[in-house]
Order: sequence, then C-alpha cells, then structure tokens
Amino acid sequence: MKTIRVKVPGGAYPIHVGKDLFDQAGAILSEAGFSVPPILVSNPAVLRLHGCRLLRSLQASFGRVPRVVIGDGERYKSRATLSSIHEALFRAGADRDSWIVAFGGGVVGDVAGFAAATFMRGIPFVNVPTTLLAQVDSAIGGKVGINVPQGKNLIGAFHQPRAVLSDPAVLRTLPERELAAGLYEVIKCAAIRSVPLLDFLERNLEDVLNCRPAPLEHIIVAAARIKAGIVAADEKEKDLRVILNFGHTIGHALEAATGYRRFKHGEAVAWGMIGAIGLGTALGFPNGQESVRLVQLIERVEPLPSMRDIRFEKVWAALERDKKFRGGIFRMVLLPRLGEAAIRSDIDPQRLRHFLKRFLQRGGDVQAAVPIPARKSSHAGK
Amino acid sequence: MKTIRVKVPGGAYPIHVGKDLFDQAGAILSEAGFSVPPILVSNPAVLRLHGCRLLRSLQASFGRVPRVVIGDGERYKSRATLSSIHEALFRAGADRDSWIVAFGGGVVGDVAGFAAATFMRGIPFVNVPTTLLAQVDSAIGGKVGINVPQGKNLIGAFHQPRAVLSDPAVLRTLPERELAAGLYEVIKCAAIRSVPLLDFLERNLEDVLNCRPAPLEHIIVAAARIKAGIVAADEKEKDLRVILNFGHTIGHALEAATGYRRFKHGEAVAWGMIGAIGLGTALGFPNGQESVRLVQLIERVEPLPSMRDIRFEKVWAALERDKKFRGGIFRMVLLPRLGEAAIRSDIDPQRLRHFLKRFLQRGGDVQAAVPIPARKSSHAGK
Repeated sequence: MKTIRVKVPGGAYPIHVGKDLFDQAGAILSEAGFSVPPILVSNPAVLRLHGCRLLRSLQASFGRVPRVVIGDGERYKSRATLSSIHEALFRAGADRDSWIVAFGGGVVGDVAGFAAATFMRGIPFVNVPTTLLAQVDSAIGGKVGINVPQGKNLIGAFHQPRAVLSDPAVLRTLPERELAAGLYEVIKCAAIRSVPLLDFLERNLEDVLNCRPAPLEHIIVAAARIKAGIVAADEKEKDLRVILNFGHTIGHALEAATGYRRFKHGEAVAWGMIGAIGLGTALGFPNGQESVRLVQLIERVEPLPSMRDIRFEKVWAALERDKKFRGGIFRMVLLPRLGEAAIRSDIDPQRLRHFLKRFLQRGGDVQAAVPIPARKSSHAGK
Repeated sequence: MKTIRVKVPGGAYPIHVGKDLFDQAGAILSEAGFSVPPILVSNPAVLRLHGCRLLRSLQASFGRVPRVVIGDGERYKSRATLSSIHEALFRAGADRDSWIVAFGGGVVGDVAGFAAATFMRGIPFVNVPTTLLAQVDSAIGGKVGINVPQGKNLIGAFHQPRAVLSDPAVLRTLPERELAAGLYEVIKCAAIRSVPLLDFLERNLEDVLNCRPAPLEHIIVAAARIKAGIVAADEKEKDLRVILNFGHTIGHALEAATGYRRFKHGEAVAWGMIGAIGLGTALGFPNGQESVRLVQLIERVEPLPSMRDIRFEKVWAALERDKKFRGGIFRMVLLPRLGEAAIRSDIDPQRLRHFLKRFLQRGGDVQAAVPIPARKSSHAGK
C-alpha cells in the first residue's frame, strides 16, 4: 500500500492506494479515529460487484452499516438525489458525529460528498472510488456538488474527504471505455506536471489497458500525487488549481454542445487537450515536436468519438457560457512545453474562434492547427 | 459608525454598526473590494420599508442591482426557496465573481447565505440585517442553512459573510414582540460573558424598548463584539461556541413541542435561560442572588407566552431528539455565575427530567427550582 498525504488548510488527509485495500478499510478507518458506523452511499452495480468485501470489513470494525443506494449515472447527480441522501441520513438516525463512505465513481463521490458537506453544516466523509477517473481525479480535492439544468457542478461546495481508499484491482470490472476515459485524465496530469509519468505511460500503455495491477497502481499513485500537490497549494481554485483544467475549456464545450450524450467526460477532455495543443501551435508556442508526442499517446488509447458533425456555433455558445470565462475574459490553460502548463488570460477571442472552427471542420485533425497570422489590430486581453 | 472585526480562519470581516448606514452601503462595499453589482435577496416587507435607501446607495456604486424576493417567515427557509434563489442567480447571469446582499431578518440571512455557500461552490455574501435578533446573533458567525421536516437548520453550512452592516434606525419599524425577542439574545450574551452589558440593560431597558438610537447602538455593538469574539475562537462550534447555546437546549425543545407556533425563538430562549438558571440552582450552583437579577431583567422586557399547558412528554421527546445531545450525552450550558457560562456534560438525565417537569407544571416559576436532593445512586455522566 502506498500513501499520499494531501495538505489542505483544514488539516491533512491520506490517499491510500493498494491492491485488496477493501479488506483493510475497517481497520484503516478505525485507526484514523472513526468509531461509530458510517453510512454507506453507493449504486447498485458497485454494490453487486464489490459491496460484500467492503461491507464485511467495515462491519467487522464498526458494526451494522446502513446503506443508501442511489441511481447509476450522471443524471442522478441531482437535487433529488441530494435530498434522498439527506432523508436516508435522518432515517438512519444520523447526527453530527455520523460520517459517510462514498463508494462508487464520480457521481457517487460528488453527490454523497455534497450531502456530507451540508448535513448538519458538515459531517466527515471518506471516498472509496471505484473508477480510474475518480481514483485519479474527482475523489481528490474536495470539489463536491450536483448538476442543475443550467449546467454541470454549478451547485456545490469545497468539502475535503477525511481519507481516500483506492484499490486498482476493482478496475478489472470497469468497462474498457470507462478505463480509457480515466486514462485521459492521467495523461492530462502528466502533460501539465510530469514528463516521467508521460514516459511511463508511453512504455506501459498496453499493460495499463490490460489492467495489470503494478502499472495501474503506479499511474494512480503518480496522478494522485500530482493532483494532491496542486490542491494543497490552492485548495479553492483561486490560482494554480486552474491548470488542472487543461483540456477542459474546449472539452466542456464539446460535452455541452452534444447534450452530454456523445462523449464521456475524459473523452471530451482528450479532444480538448488536442485542441489546446493545436491552439498553442497556432499562437506560435514552440511546442511542435513535443506536443506531437502527447497527441500520439492520446490516439493510442482508443478511437475517440467523432467531432465532425458538431455544429461550431453550438460549441462556441457553450464556450461563452462556461463559468471559467470569468468576467468576460477568455482564460485557457495552454502547454508551453510538456510537463509545464500556463494559464493564459490574453487569448484573443477572434483567434480562438477562427482556430476552433477549423479544428472542428477537420474533425480534430491536429494539422488544423496551422499558424494563423495575427490580425493587424490584434491585441492582448481585449 | 462603530466597526468590530471578526477574525476567522479564512480571513477577517467587519461588522459595521451605525445610524443611517444604508446610505453609505455602496461606498463601504466598493471600498471593501466589490466591483460588479450584487444580487439583492430580500422579502416584500423589508423592501417596502427600507429597500429604496439601500438600493439607491448600492446602485450609485455598482449600477443596476437585480433583486430576488422570497416569502416572509420561517416556513420560507426551505429547500424550495434555496432552489428559487439559485434559479434567480442563473437568470441574472451570475457567475463565480457574483455576490449576494442578504437584506432582512434571520430567514433571509440564513437561506441567502446558504445559497451563496453553494452557488458555484461558494460566492461571497454580505449581511444587512433588519431585525435586532439578526443584528446581534444570526447575521454574525457564518451559520447558514435551511429547515427540513425533521427539524430546523439541519441542512446548511458554515459560510462567513464578507461584511455585516447593521443600522439600529431600521428597528423602529420592527414589531414590539420582534424587538423583545431579539433583546433576549442580547441578555443571553450579557449573561454568558458581560456583567457590564447586564448593568447597562438594567439601567436603560426602557430607552432600548422605545428604540432610542444611542442605547440600541450600544447594545448591538456590545452583543456583536461578544459573539464575534466567541466565533473567532471557535468558528465551527467544536468547543467554546457552544456557550452561545445558553438557554437554547430547553428553548429549542419548547419550540418543537409547540410546533414552532407559540414562541418566537428569542422568547423560547428566554424561558430556556430561566430554566437553565433554575436547573443550576437545583444542582447546587452558588448563583442564587445573581441569577434572580437575570430572571428579573427577562421579566421586565415583556410577558412571555405561557408554558403552563405544554405537555411535558412532548418537551422531553424533543429534548432527546435535539442534535445538541451528541452520542446520547446530555450536554447543557449552565451559569455558575453571571457573565460566566460553563458547558456541562455530566447532567444526570433523571434530575433534568425531574426538574423540567416541575418547571413546566409551575408555568416557569423560578421558585420551581428548589434544590432537589441527589438520588443515592446518582452519578456523573451516565
């Protein structure tokens, strides 16, 4: 078992990564100071596949563990599910000393974490993520929340988990496409912070895709460490944490423009990273050779769903609505070189528009990223 | 204008108290660093009585201020109102740089503050309280939230305001009973922390009840300072902050047992303080002479709604459900002497039960608080 500590203003918490960790969950968490039984929030598929082992371990340490089962899928990250978790907490007799174990993918972690953040003004919760995406990204960092008709994650809070328990062995039961979607976030971590992780992925991609435990554990630990370091430096996304959004600006717009049905989040981020690299090239960043490496790695994972028939105006409208464009300024994370991200607030919307149109027309072909001559009147900021 | 600074882990914020402060609200808040227009959350009565002045000042500094009007009364501190504020924020085009001005009593402050805490993971808000209770208590300290069928304030968060603007002059339009209800919380502050404030109240009670600005301002500043000091030492009620609940254990139970219809919160707290003093005497605290002063001051404010026909078993059931009884231990704030509160976790539930039954039977007559002989088998804790 490897342990990474996340240092946030309210106190540090551990991310434990290791094979067959569920059998030790009760012991680890009782050593961490918990004494009363937690309330377990999960979904039917996760409970069926992995519930027995986790529950056996928790019940051996804490006694009977009440369960709250929520629906499986993004549409259950809703106000209705939030209320239903609160109701279940009341039925279970929960009070301010109660705590939650969120057992599942990003949906379970986000909505159960938000329920914990708001029940009696905040009770502790522990994340036990069962997807690669959650293990390397959403379970770490304390962003919790729900979706509303106006957009994803627009209602929520910052509420750090007390511990994260990630078992690479559970990923065997994950659909291939889900595994790939998580892998794009690992590639993102490498792209913004770690050339060694990128090297490792290039060398071991097939083993990772075949769920071999050792390389899986390696990349989970590496990505979690990168995310933990960034979150520790900027818990509430005032500054540095923004670089975790590399690939997300265009990615979110693609998801929104296709009604969140075509792409998995990670797939949209993969297109977003390719787009951001192309935009960097178009803006004259000296990242030609290096960025080809990144694009090639992304392309080796699996074929991405096509962008070819998406209407540009829909993507542009989504981009303009995006909460990341604060105060009308187009802010994006670009990659001056591999392993080094930069937040740019000086992107000329006209040039972004021009680039993105061609990028979509050519179906994401990175060759669309030919340098665009700067307009005469172009200026930073706008 | 007097200013008190509240120091909390996330940074300090000011409480400004002064006559005709609304005319300066825009200037004060733009100096505090706000630049875009806020979204104002209020209720119809407050807007009608005081809206013009505040809006004129805000609009002079920030431009057009969108308004969200919510219903007046405790039953609007609900999930439905929370959602309606979020919806209005989306309609107004709010983003992560937006901020809220909560303009009204405790209901507006609590639900608008909770909307701010959860909109895009937290946006700033400013409290402009218009009741005495809110000015001295609920607007300070960052407790925000809503009621659910299971109880009051059970869903919520800690989210500190960026500033509090309290104008004693607005209290002229407050119904007498509301003013009295707020005054009991001022008396509570004096009881737990400040004999000089108690002296002042005894000398100036009539002037306060007649809304003379100078003594009103004096007690608002004094009570706000006491609360700010306690919140600064213990933001999230792990320890010291519990003493602010003096009178609230029995008070909450009385409110719940009467369906929140008979008593205003402050009135129930007033009975709760008398009860806690009686219990202290029954337990042998040497506070006889001093506590009579406190009871007499409470009785001078206005006649409290009667307790005589409330069924004891209902009060006891509410007490047992109270979230303040953590892990089955009966914890109460008592008053060993005036100006000095003590958290007691060793109260024998049987003695509390015995005392409370007599207290209710005698309709709150403090003479019910005759010493009760300790049972042979009585022991601390239970």
